[in-house]
Amino acid sequence: MSATGLFITFEGGDGSGKTTQASLLGEWLAGQGRAVVRTREPGGTEVGIEVREIVLHHRGDIAPRAEALLYAADRAHHVATVVRPALERGDVVIQDRYIDSSVAYQGAGRVLDPAEVRGISEWATGGLLPDLTILLDLDAEAARERLDGARTRYDRLEAEASEFHDRVRSAYLALAGDEPERFLVVDASLPVDEIAAAVRARVAGLL
Amino acid sequence: MSATGLFITFEGGDGSGKTTQASLLGEWLAGQGRAVVRTREPGGTEVGIEVREIVLHHRGDIAPRAEALLYAADRAHHVATVVRPALERGDVVIQDRYIDSSVAYQGAGRVLDPAEVRGISEWATGGLLPDLTILLDLDAEAARERLDGARTRYDRLEAEASEFHDRVRSAYLALAGDEPERFLVVDASLPVDEIAAAVRARVAGLL
Repeated sequence: MSATGLFITFEGGDGSGKTTQASLLGEWLAGQGRAVVRTREPGGTEVGIEVREIVLHHRGDIAPRAEALLYAADRAHHVATVVRPALERGDVVIQDRYIDSSVAYQGAGRVLDPAEVRGISEWATGGLLPDLTILLDLDAEAARERLDGARTRYDRLEAEASEFHDRVRSAYLALAGDEPERFLVVDASLPVDEIAAAVRARVAGLL
Repeated sequence: MSATGLFITFEGGDGSGKTTQASLLGEWLAGQGRAVVRTREPGGTEVGIEVREIVLHHRGDIAPRAEALLYAADRAHHVATVVRPALERGDVVIQDRYIDSSVAYQGAGRVLDPAEVRGISEWATGGLLPDLTILLDLDAEAARERLDGARTRYDRLEAEASEFHDRVRSAYLALAGDEPERFLVVDASLPVDEIAAAVRARVAGLL
């Protein structure tokens, strides 16, 4: 989909190691002499920061479709002003979260139709899809252990959070199953170095 | 489309008299004992005011699709929190600008596909269309006379503005032609009272 550059996204729940792996991949690619742009959504532009401020800090509820459209607006501006120009220069863009995050989280939220959310995102971006999406897959228990350390008892709220995590995870795995050529699914409970090696091996095949 | 209330929108270029006619219609309907909600887009809610602030006052350009999505987000929240609740109460909602504004202005701007812009707006609103849309139609010369008073010479920028006005007008008339049962087109150069009478006659048929 990209003109001459390479567009790589990292997906996965909070605590799955996206930022760490994106950094390691960026360093490795820079070492190979590639120009690398590290970015993220939401909030990868000044407009995006203002939009994010509304979504996160507005007092009172925001209608679900309005929230989805605000994230899509952030994405549209980010792709038009950061991602596409970098790809046209031939750079490698490494990004935390993209379309799949919207689809997986909206799907898990059960309020909006994931296919419609994807359609809005595709319109926002003019249909730009990543060349490679790395899904850092982690089950709810492992995610909880990472975030909580050595706790052994959980309250009702934490149990609900765990169910939500399971739904997000299932949605992500379904997306990866639909597009195996675009996705690399990695077990995020493996050691950092092993994950990084698996990612590099796949990316090397694209260079 | 509305549950039990009545959803009436006013459309037309700046200076066509939308606010005046919306107020007169609202007063008349209130006199008939109807509960009336007067509102507008963009900026008819607190979230909408924050979104409008980004669209109008962000330093630097906003990507065209991002701008369209921000307007759609404003619309989604406005419909969910103001328009639909009022219609469900059985009120009459009288609104300055709605979907047709986005389609006509985007069409005139020539950057985005008007059909796609309409699709985004319909998703934002869950497909809510007005029971009646009153288009206050004014040609470019008459609009200019209203805004400029007695001036007789115009510079290049003003000529361009006139061309833009013509394109918006054509787009509006095309929309009205596509849905004659939803639209009432009124010559906005007529006296205020005559326009108000034409609007009342059409609305009376819907009560």
